[in-house]
Amino acid sequence: MNIKEIDNPKQIKQLSINELEHLSQDIRTFIMENVSKTGGHFSSNLGITDLTVALHYVFDSPKDKFIFDVGHQSYVHKILTGRAKDFSTLRQYNGLSGFQRRHESEHDPWEAGHSSTSISGATGIAIARDLNKEDFQVIAIIGDAAILSGESLEALNYLGSSNTKVIVILNDNDMSISKNVGGLSKALSDIRVSKQYNEVKDNYTQFMMKTKTGKEIYKATKKVKDKIKHRVMIDSLFQQFGIDYLGPVDGHDMGELINALTTAKKLDHSVILHVKTIKGKGYPRAEQDKIGLYHGVPPFDLKKGILNKTNTHSQKWSEAIANHIEYMMGKHDDICVITPAMISGSQLNHIFKSYPNRSFDVGIAEEHAMTFLAGLSVGGKFPFLSIYSSFAQRAYDQLNHDVARMDLPCLIGIDRSDLVGSDGSTHHGVFDISFMRGIPNLILMAPSSQKEAEAMINTAYYNHDHPYVIRYSKNSISKTSLHNDERLEIGSWEYRIHSDAKTVVITYGDHVNEIEERIRSHNLSCDLINARFINPMDEEMLNSIVDKNIIVYETCMVNSSLGSAIVLHYAKHHLNVNISLMGIGEHYVTHGDIENLLKQEKLSMDDVELRIQELNNEKRES
Amino acid sequence: MNIKEIDNPKQIKQLSINELEHLSQDIRTFIMENVSKTGGHFSSNLGITDLTVALHYVFDSPKDKFIFDVGHQSYVHKILTGRAKDFSTLRQYNGLSGFQRRHESEHDPWEAGHSSTSISGATGIAIARDLNKEDFQVIAIIGDAAILSGESLEALNYLGSSNTKVIVILNDNDMSISKNVGGLSKALSDIRVSKQYNEVKDNYTQFMMKTKTGKEIYKATKKVKDKIKHRVMIDSLFQQFGIDYLGPVDGHDMGELINALTTAKKLDHSVILHVKTIKGKGYPRAEQDKIGLYHGVPPFDLKKGILNKTNTHSQKWSEAIANHIEYMMGKHDDICVITPAMISGSQLNHIFKSYPNRSFDVGIAEEHAMTFLAGLSVGGKFPFLSIYSSFAQRAYDQLNHDVARMDLPCLIGIDRSDLVGSDGSTHHGVFDISFMRGIPNLILMAPSSQKEAEAMINTAYYNHDHPYVIRYSKNSISKTSLHNDERLEIGSWEYRIHSDAKTVVITYGDHVNEIEERIRSHNLSCDLINARFINPMDEEMLNSIVDKNIIVYETCMVNSSLGSAIVLHYAKHHLNVNISLMGIGEHYVTHGDIENLLKQEKLSMDDVELRIQELNNEKRES
Repeated sequence: MNIKEIDNPKQIKQLSINELEHLSQDIRTFIMENVSKTGGHFSSNLGITDLTVALHYVFDSPKDKFIFDVGHQSYVHKILTGRAKDFSTLRQYNGLSGFQRRHESEHDPWEAGHSSTSISGATGIAIARDLNKEDFQVIAIIGDAAILSGESLEALNYLGSSNTKVIVILNDNDMSISKNVGGLSKALSDIRVSKQYNEVKDNYTQFMMKTKTGKEIYKATKKVKDKIKHRVMIDSLFQQFGIDYLGPVDGHDMGELINALTTAKKLDHSVILHVKTIKGKGYPRAEQDKIGLYHGVPPFDLKKGILNKTNTHSQKWSEAIANHIEYMMGKHDDICVITPAMISGSQLNHIFKSYPNRSFDVGIAEEHAMTFLAGLSVGGKFPFLSIYSSFAQRAYDQLNHDVARMDLPCLIGIDRSDLVGSDGSTHHGVFDISFMRGIPNLILMAPSSQKEAEAMINTAYYNHDHPYVIRYSKNSISKTSLHNDERLEIGSWEYRIHSDAKTVVITYGDHVNEIEERIRSHNLSCDLINARFINPMDEEMLNSIVDKNIIVYETCMVNSSLGSAIVLHYAKHHLNVNISLMGIGEHYVTHGDIENLLKQEKLSMDDVELRIQELNNEKRES
Repeated sequence: MNIKEIDNPKQIKQLSINELEHLSQDIRTFIMENVSKTGGHFSSNLGITDLTVALHYVFDSPKDKFIFDVGHQSYVHKILTGRAKDFSTLRQYNGLSGFQRRHESEHDPWEAGHSSTSISGATGIAIARDLNKEDFQVIAIIGDAAILSGESLEALNYLGSSNTKVIVILNDNDMSISKNVGGLSKALSDIRVSKQYNEVKDNYTQFMMKTKTGKEIYKATKKVKDKIKHRVMIDSLFQQFGIDYLGPVDGHDMGELINALTTAKKLDHSVILHVKTIKGKGYPRAEQDKIGLYHGVPPFDLKKGILNKTNTHSQKWSEAIANHIEYMMGKHDDICVITPAMISGSQLNHIFKSYPNRSFDVGIAEEHAMTFLAGLSVGGKFPFLSIYSSFAQRAYDQLNHDVARMDLPCLIGIDRSDLVGSDGSTHHGVFDISFMRGIPNLILMAPSSQKEAEAMINTAYYNHDHPYVIRYSKNSISKTSLHNDERLEIGSWEYRIHSDAKTVVITYGDHVNEIEERIRSHNLSCDLINARFINPMDEEMLNSIVDKNIIVYETCMVNSSLGSAIVLHYAKHHLNVNISLMGIGEHYVTHGDIENLLKQEKLSMDDVELRIQELNNEKRES
């Protein structure tokens, strides 16, 4: 079967188990060849290949609804629903999304990008189905880390008391992006390594069917009794939620998968089907990867694997931040570090090794992470929470109600801020200033260089007076500093270019350097201000430029970020200024390379240059 | 012991069990007498009295840290820590807070108001203690509904894998504000009604100590075997989280409580102590209350109880909204209703009785509530979610990532918006516009009358094109409509007063009527615009008033609500206007009666009048 010729999952219904296994193997090869060229989510899609083939064999998409939690593991689903031919465009501008997308296919009934929404969404769709007296299956496919997040647990609790039917497939690879966290995770692991799993592996379906006769078996031999007792313990995690449980099933045994899914399909109530998979299945380097190197990959050579390139001149922002935090931890033993399941992504591996007692990975649990930070601060520690901008959205209430309202000294690193490119609308860090600007007590900072970032970290630590936020992108920056001890005056901005030009650009973060480069290389007549504090602002500097043409450039939501704050400042002081805001309008931004996205949003450096020139040529009205 | 003379909890350490019981009874009487005069949280404080007395007997506050989840059940704690004498000022301006407050007492190490933060906070404080090599106990006291919320489950999961020690007291009254929800809730209930509870009631401590020898007992009689088996089932809910479990304990048996707390204190690891209490203990009407009438009470006559006054002329906003939703549900069978544990507060009782199949109480689970709404919408239903403004903060990510990003037709009712008065900083609904204005696709509406609210609900339903938000306060409004079928043009504002005055006030919601009343009764020269759509705005009307003095009045965060949006509109169109914003500055607002709070924030009607007159007398600069 030529993979690119599959345009309907019905085509696989006639295949034998043996043929399905071959198909799976071919899809894995296809993914390896394609994703190693385009980049994308690698290990999770190799791990879920057999399961996805079995799902499409047993169920009937699009009538039956598959909801992949997060959705980055839906590549096989895309391949089986006619999208293999588009895989060379994966995550590229105008190309295939890296997640499920409703406009992309009728086989994608749901969209996500953030974890742990699938069971809630599936429950809603299932109850709507019941009310509509429709007849189809709703299947949520969720990983072992995502199912332990607060929203998933809320949804399981609700589903367990509801009369609807949802099939929850627990895709358990014992890893999430890196490793799993928490007491429940241990309970899951106990299931995984249980004797029962190995004993019943070959005849689990038969075993499943025996539950109703459990009491009779109980009268039998001691050995059987122990088995039953063990089974009671195994089931109880999900039984506590009031949900039936099947498994664990070998996620790479096609026959077993099909039997299990068929059993789940026949049930008249919700069930959790526990499928044990191997992340990276079929690519040994990914199978052995324990730190998540092959979770999301850049283009790489399949034969050589991902090479660890160390660049002596540049580094990721997260690395620069983590390095200085680690330096400060060496000097000050009250500094602690928290991450919600992003040790690798946030470049915290070295800190976790150097300071294991002061480093806390709380799992996919952003809400707990933020309130836990509040607790550490109340307890006299100085906590640093590293969190992606888009995932910080899930801790908005905790940031507001716990951290800012109690005005607790701490530092929050907002990683992956601004446009992130190929992950698209669910991952762009364009809302953080928008939702944080309205929260009292927060000091919001955005560094334009490593040196400045270090000074900001120092300032937050030594001032010890408020919650501080430092936001930075996923870009690389120059290595320019080796742990300076400077601090900044709160709310102080600085001129990066200060001539007597009639136009001035105000910006922050990476954009300071980008625009400086453009102004200097193109000899533009324009001043440039580095607004390194987004809140509070440098009101003195703002008041000194009222007779200039002002451009505020940012790649965040324009209506609620720095530009709108500056406009408000002038209005409050009844100052009439000529100001242009450049930022993202009232819409979500798609995926693709940053260059194309900036062009689309009219935020490219050419757009900036054009605006400067327009203003320089404009007659100022008074 | 005179309750008002207690100024240190140490004073109760010398009392006998009998004397502690008498003290408890006296405190209950004190609470009944005081809270029935001031209003406040009633049933939960009567239910937790014995437990709190026992806590202060066994532990040493402020060295040991008590964290009351939410905190509205901390009255007894306040009484035992020297605050009884201030109880006549409870929840009043400049008086005692209705929650724990750090500036109020060294015995309040933590603050909250929203549910389910206590275990995260306690874990942070406990880990800080361990790192600081300090020696004290951290005790989180949490209800049976709050412990099942997502953030609590995240925290329990984390605590279960951590080496620190937190004592979690599960204050289980089987009720939360009204009733409990979910599969886990049933698991808890199974514990409550278990034979084991009754059998071991009198010697539970002894029983607890036997767990290590469980295997030997297992060899004994069938009866004992069954007991052990039952115990395995009981423990497993919390054992799954990796946390030790003690209980259930009778929360009104002082001796049993003290034994249990002493056992928990001696352990070297975290434990959940399950305490069974009766909400409203000691006041029969409250004990028998199944709908939460005595949860938060207005001043009432203790002898007569709370009387159900029906007012034929006025009603609460939530009632008006619920009534029209119910009317629409009768006409359209695709409308569904969701509440996160606020059936009574949101006046949904009648809907839940009339349309049980289309009414969903998901428990304290705001995240799940919002994504579940998204699922219902994807499934072809038109869901209405009723949620308090301040609790909606917890669903920010789901509103953004799931509902708005997929642009799903639905209606979200933001109840208790604007200042709420005596509940204070954690409950004021002053952030919703701030965090929602930056989210694309949302239509934000604020009605000024019942008729307008009904038209807004109609508009959202019939347009069926985007997510709509309708926000309203906890105030009462006139009964003026019986289910109109009108709709509104999206973004259309209206003049409430339209003369040729040189000053115009723009406002929305209740404030339209308040300001109209002031302008008319004081014969002020001022126009008035009802900005019933906060997003999108009526740009045409905005452009038509540029030569007026404009006042935007709101009781939300001034820097990120309607006023700032209007300022931005004018700046984008390079229109120079004389605009004054009235709203809440960059700080949290304390508790107290609305009148005093408005004066403090310079937002009283006198302040509005003053501003109008200042502007009318002002020479307009051009």
